[in-house]
Order: sequence, then C-alpha cells, then structure tokens
Amino acid sequence: MGGDYAPANEVAGAVQSLRQSHNEFEVILVGKEEEIRRQLDAHHAQGLSYSVVHADEVIEMDDSPNAALKQKKNSSLAIGVQLHKEGKADAFASIGNTGAVLSASTLILGRIKGVSRPTIGAFFPSETGVCLLVDAGTNVDCRAQHLYEFAVMGSIYAKRVFKYENPKVGLLSIGEEKIKGSEVVQEAHKILESSNLNFIGNVEGRDILKGKAQVVVCDGFVGNVVLKFGESIPGFMKAKLKQYAGGSIWRKLLIGLARGSLRASLREMDYEEFGGVPVLGVNGVSIIGHGGSSPKAIKNMILKAAEVAQSQINKYIEEAMASSLVGQRARHGATLVHTQ
Amino acid sequence: MGGDYAPANEVAGAVQSLRQSHNEFEVILVGKEEEIRRQLDAHHAQGLSYSVVHADEVIEMDDSPNAALKQKKNSSLAIGVQLHKEGKADAFASIGNTGAVLSASTLILGRIKGVSRPTIGAFFPSETGVCLLVDAGTNVDCRAQHLYEFAVMGSIYAKRVFKYENPKVGLLSIGEEKIKGSEVVQEAHKILESSNLNFIGNVEGRDILKGKAQVVVCDGFVGNVVLKFGESIPGFMKAKLKQYAGGSIWRKLLIGLARGSLRASLREMDYEEFGGVPVLGVNGVSIIGHGGSSPKAIKNMILKAAEVAQSQINKYIEEAMASSLVGQRARHGATLVHTQ
Repeated sequence: MGGDYAPANEVAGAVQSLRQSHNEFEVILVGKEEEIRRQLDAHHAQGLSYSVVHADEVIEMDDSPNAALKQKKNSSLAIGVQLHKEGKADAFASIGNTGAVLSASTLILGRIKGVSRPTIGAFFPSETGVCLLVDAGTNVDCRAQHLYEFAVMGSIYAKRVFKYENPKVGLLSIGEEKIKGSEVVQEAHKILESSNLNFIGNVEGRDILKGKAQVVVCDGFVGNVVLKFGESIPGFMKAKLKQYAGGSIWRKLLIGLARGSLRASLREMDYEEFGGVPVLGVNGVSIIGHGGSSPKAIKNMILKAAEVAQSQINKYIEEAMASSLVGQRARHGATLVHTQ
Repeated sequence: MGGDYAPANEVAGAVQSLRQSHNEFEVILVGKEEEIRRQLDAHHAQGLSYSVVHADEVIEMDDSPNAALKQKKNSSLAIGVQLHKEGKADAFASIGNTGAVLSASTLILGRIKGVSRPTIGAFFPSETGVCLLVDAGTNVDCRAQHLYEFAVMGSIYAKRVFKYENPKVGLLSIGEEKIKGSEVVQEAHKILESSNLNFIGNVEGRDILKGKAQVVVCDGFVGNVVLKFGESIPGFMKAKLKQYAGGSIWRKLLIGLARGSLRASLREMDYEEFGGVPVLGVNGVSIIGHGGSSPKAIKNMILKAAEVAQSQINKYIEEAMASSLVGQRARHGATLVHTQ
C-alpha cells in the first residue's frame, strides 16, 4: 500500500507476474482489502493464484521509518513482513518507504548471524552485464569492516542470483593504487585483499558502466549519489536531444526516426528492468522497489523475489560470515602479535 | 610537457588559442625548447605572440607529486608556476600530473589567506547551464569547515567567471532534509545555512544534471567518483547503441543518420568543451586540464586561463574568507556562551 499509485500498480504488477509465470507461485496481497479486490476485479484476476490479507494502516513515504513502525502496528508493511517471518510467505516485496522496509525487515526478520549491518544494493547496467553496487544508501558512515561485509553479501548475490561464476569485486575509490581513497577505503582494501573473495582492487567511477567488476563496494553516501546521478541520465539526454532537435526540422526528423533505437539503448539505465533490489543480511527475502514503479517494474520485482527465495542466498551468507569471523579473529591475533 | 601527447597537443592548442584571440595575450611555452620549436614550425606559428622558456625535466603522470617536485627542480611544471609567481606570467595552465600541479601551485604560489585547503572543482553540464562541482578529487577526508570553504570559493568562481548573478549553492547529500547525510555533511549544512551564500539546502545526485544548483559542494571522494562516472557515460552510450544497431540494417541506418545529432547532444558531457578546471584557493591562477586533452581542449583551457586572470577572483575569495572568519569567530563565541 506504500507505493505512489497504490494499490493500482501493485495489483496490476501482481496479476502480470502470475500470468507470465503461469501461477508458478502464489501472491499474497497485503493491504486495504476492498481497494485491492476492486483492482483485482478490474484486471479479471479470477483463476490466478492470489490471496488477500487485510491491513488497516499504511506507512507513507514521508513517515519516519521507526516511529511509523511503532505507531502503525497494522500497516501493510508490518503485516507483510510478519507473514514472511511466520513462514506463511517465502519472500516479501514492497515499493513503499525504503527506510521502513529496511527497518521492518531488520527488526522483524532479524539479522543473519555475523552481519553487522544489513544493506541494500543497486543494479547498474554495464558493458559486460549487470553490476551490483552495494551499499546504495542504507549505511552512510561506514567502517572498513562494514564495507567488507557488503562485499561478501554482494558477491554471494551476484553468484547465486545473477549466476556469475566467480564475480569480480571492486572497491570504489578515486584511483587504482591501494593508497588512494579515504582512510576507511584504504583500510577496507587491506581486509578485502586478504579475503577469499575475487577482489580485483580499487575501481573508479568510470569502471562501473564499463563493467570492470560485477560487485562494486562503497558506503551508502557515495552509492546513493552515484545511483541517483545515474537515474537522472535518461531524462537529461531526452532534454538535450529535444533542445537540439528544436534547432531544425531535419534534426527533428532524424531524432524522431531514431527515437526507438535510443529508447531501447537507454532502457538498460532504467530501474524498471531490474525489478527491485534485495535487503541483504536479514533472515529472509525482502525486496524493495522504486516508489513510482510501473506495473511492469512490480511484475519484475515479484518474479525476482521468487527467484531470490529459491536461491537460498542467506544460507551462503551465514556460512561466509562464519568463516570470515574466523578469518577476522586470525587477523586480529596476528595484529596483536605484531604490535607487541 | 606532462600531457599524454606532449608537446604536440600543447603547442597545437596554444597556436589555436592565439589565432582565435588574435594575439590578445602572449603564451609562454615552458618545456624542452627544441621539441617545442619543432612543433611551432610545423604549425607555421611565426607572427603569433608566443615565447619559449626551456625546462630540462618532465614530471610524469605516474610520478609521486611531492617527491617529483623535490627531485625535478627544473621541470616544466615547477618553472612554469615559478614564472607566474614572479609576475612574468598572469596565469599558469597545464595538462600534466594533477596532484603535482596542485602541490606546485600550493607550495610555490601559497594559499590565499583564510583558506585551509585549496581545491579543484569539475564542470558538469546541466539542463540550466554549467554546474561547478567542488571538490572533484583533491581533498578526500574533509571536515565541515572545508566543505564550507569550497562553497565560498565555488560560489565566487560561478559568479565572476560564469557570470551567474547569484549562484545557487547546493550541498550534495542523500536526501533533501537537513538531517540526511553523513555526520560531516549534516554539520556543513548548519554552517552553510548560517552563511551569506545563496544556499538552497541539500541536493541529491539526480539534481546535478537537472541544474538545481550552479555550485554543488561535496568532499573529493564523492566528487571524483561522480565526475568519473559522468565521463564514462558517452562511451557507454556509444557501446550500447553500437550493440543495438548490430541487430538490424534498419536500426543501423537510423542510428547512423542520427549520429551527428547524438554526438552534438552528448558533447556537453565532454570535458573538452570546458577547457580545464581552476585550482581554487591559491595566490594565483592555475588551471588544470585532462592529460589526454586534444588541441581544442587545450585551446579552450588557455582561453579560460586568460579569462580567469582578468576576473580577479582571488581578491573576492580573500575578502569572503576574511568576513567568514569573523563569522566563524562570532559563531564560535555564540556556541561558547550557549554551552556555559
């Protein structure tokens, strides 16, 4: 119920996902039942494998996440995550208030053992395939250990969901040499170097779209700025082309003819194709989409949630964290000896 | 002598700048005299207002800035900046090692009184005109006071060189509310709010190309990542269009026809048009261009250097720093009273 066009786009997307997958899974629609059923009727949804669970309240986009979760116990968000917690659903997906989805997922589902901070990544197109940038805005002031954990979780996601065999992990910095970057980044470089990830060293801003790495690690401040900058490019291109086309009929004609091609090429920079991003590090599958998602984006998000639920990534994350904790202890031990 | 194609592109650019400006200024070419004169001959430069000052050594792109400045006392870079220091030149411009240009400018020219850290910005195209992002990679770990100084210097540059009447200053963050962002950014927000700049509050990554502010303030880590990400977009677009065009003859034809229009629209994202960025906060005019600059980019850089030299921005920066120091003291005083 938290999206910008709720529940119209949510229901439309759910219906599309069930039609496309031939009812391979069931969608539980959580929210104001009457409104949801009205939308279902409009889409002639009979015969599809859905159910509706009523929820009285809605957490709005501008609600403060933690306060809203306390005050609105019967929000569609809280009830939805709770259904997942109780095993009545195998995954949860929402296009509502991102902070509230993150908080609800962390509080209700709990963190995976060994994870200090759950994180949300973002997908970027690249010349060599999709790239996961993690963190994309959740954790602003990070320590090196947090960046390392993002790398572990991102790498497992890239391997298990994107099916990259041995995903390359890059650390976002401002130069390739390991002495480049902020103090935290330099420290993270050392940890990543001694890890068993496929760490290719520092990558720069220009390497994201080039696809130099399949997982790019950064703090949530940098990640969020790059993500939003990237999202603004198609709009900027359109504005510039329009301006330029205004200069002559001939230009207008040429750009008009090539419009379809341009749109197809820009499509990859469009979040709608990726179908939401996962909250990594919580005991469950929680997927977050853009508040303004179209039905198609929501369809993709639901299909993605089903895929992630089947990938068992959390089992792999827990294993990796357990072995990296051992690694951490060993390294700490070594450091202590060294400083004596 | 420090550029990727030195001194060929440097000389070609200098010759173009003199032809375009009808010898309105003089260019002093500093470097290996014989090589430079050979290039000048190739361009039939007789009659143009240039001179050549010989310099034996070259600071290379991969030299460590400070070590190179100590060891190579007769580098073209050191001698060039020294000429400016001695008043024999009104501005200095280079496309060599950025770190070394910054160090030489800071060490030889000195900092403007009241400036803690000289900074280098970057220009972005936007829907409403050019935008100055500052810092673009010079100062990685920043305190709030540094961000404030970047804002002051950027604002003066935007006003005096870009001729924006009352440039809007935005603080790059991950949300519009003042409580969004890292601790340093939240602190900088408070300082900027109480300053006499035209501060419009936080801006997000998506607001840069939209042109919401003419000056966008951030630390050098974030700035450098966004800058390099932006620079990679035209290449990515080309690769994607090529891939897409490969799908059919018809698409290939359409994209081929529209190529000129596309290129013209993308041109604004190309650093060549902006002609180098200034080192802000040093006692002099020091402009840095991209190491791989074409002759045209170098021509624009030299024209820009002449323009900046005439703008007297340093006088305005010194005045602003003096009055903001007073402001700082006043604020500190207020804080002391408050905590008693």
